Amino acid sequence: MKSHRKELWFETRERRKLINITPQVEQVLSESGIKEGLLLCNAMHITASVFINDDESGLHQDFETWLEKLAPEKPYEQYHHNGYEDNADAHLKRTVMGREVVVAVTGGRLDLGPWEQIFYGEFDGKRKKRVLVKIIGE
Amino acid sequence: MKSHRKELWFETRERRKLINITPQVEQVLSESGIKEGLLLCNAMHITASVFINDDESGLHQDFETWLEKLAPEKPYEQYHHNGYEDNADAHLKRTVMGREVVVAVTGGRLDLGPWEQIFYGEFDGKRKKRVLVKIIGE
Amino acid sequence: MKSHRKELWFETRERRKLINITPQVEQVLSESGIKEGLLLCNAMHITASVFINDDESGLHQDFETWLEKLAPEKPYEQYHHNGYEDNADAHLKRTVMGREVVVAVTGGRLDLGPWEQIFYGEFDGKRKKRVLVKIIGE
Repeated sequence: MKSHRKELWFETRERRKLINITPQVEQVLSESGIKEGLLLCNAMHITASVFINDDESGLHQDFETWLEKLAPEKPYEQYHHNGYEDNADAHLKRTVMGREVVVAVTGGRLDLGPWEQIFYGEFDGKRKKRVLVKIIGE
Repeated sequence: MKSHRKELWFETRERRKLINITPQVEQVLSESGIKEGLLLCNAMHITASVFINDDESGLHQDFETWLEKLAPEKPYEQYHHNGYEDNADAHLKRTVMGREVVVAVTGGRLDLGPWEQIFYGEFDGKRKKRVLVKIIGE
Repeated sequence: MKSHRKELWFETRERRKLINITPQVEQVLSESGIKEGLLLCNAMHITASVFINDDESGLHQDFETWLEKLAPEKPYEQYHHNGYEDNADAHLKRTVMGREVVVAVTGGRLDLGPWEQIFYGEFDGKRKKRVLVKIIGE
């Protein structure tokens, strides 16, 4: 069994941002030389997400509106977590979107459906944060 | 390390439908000959879900009502994604329900709790769509 | 390839409770002797969750308030599932929080970000319930 590990770093100018990281994840898989196995890709921070969906800008606007409805950023004082912080909403938004994805590796490629793309979802940006890619297989 | 891959195909007559796929997934595991490992089961489409919950029809009605409350199908024009599409709600519903499950394989069986059943959740049906099963182990 | 399996048992006095299980999961990993691989940790019950977030009591109060808003416990009769049960809300709350986490194992340790902690989320407690830890690797 082989394994491979790499961190990807992100720093967004916006508080919230969705970034298609499929090319970077494919690159990490390529470096690993693993042909058959499983790839884990997770946010290492609890106010960010890694998820799979469509790379369509209208949908990304819909995610923003929808997450603000389910877990609004403001007023900050509605959340107990926001005594010293202002990012409670980011913890909740990331919970909806998910921490991680596990993707099959087949023939040395990410075994994704036709529209599946891997995204980093930042919900409390403007600082450096990491995504972990870990691959095991042969 | 062994690995095994299979696609399961679904085509529902309804826009939304929950299908218990535990028997099919167990069949794939049996074909693989893998006794100890991890099994990934994911929707290959971004308007469908694979999740684990109870096979109880009342609960399934509750999921339908609840998802329609959290991310209503109509009016279609409330979503930016619905310029050429009408399925933005399906992307959001699938996000709540999740893309994938990872299940332990122990002694050649799905290592599930007493009421755990694996479901395909279709939120934009009436066309052929796929689920991927990938198993690694020994 | 090595594999290791262990069940963790919980019985809460409260209906809902979040428990930091990171030390127990680390202990299971240590027992396994596995240095590189993937660790699956999942609730074996469909009214409970395993998730990763911050161990901060204010945030945990926010989760309680938020989940009660998204999927209120009462009135019980609002849910079809509650003919013989009263826990439909727990199925929905667990769906939001997720069934499982997959964590990378690197150098014999849980490969977590600085604030990532693993939680058992109980949404229908007062009885014995299980969490499964399954690790594969080398």
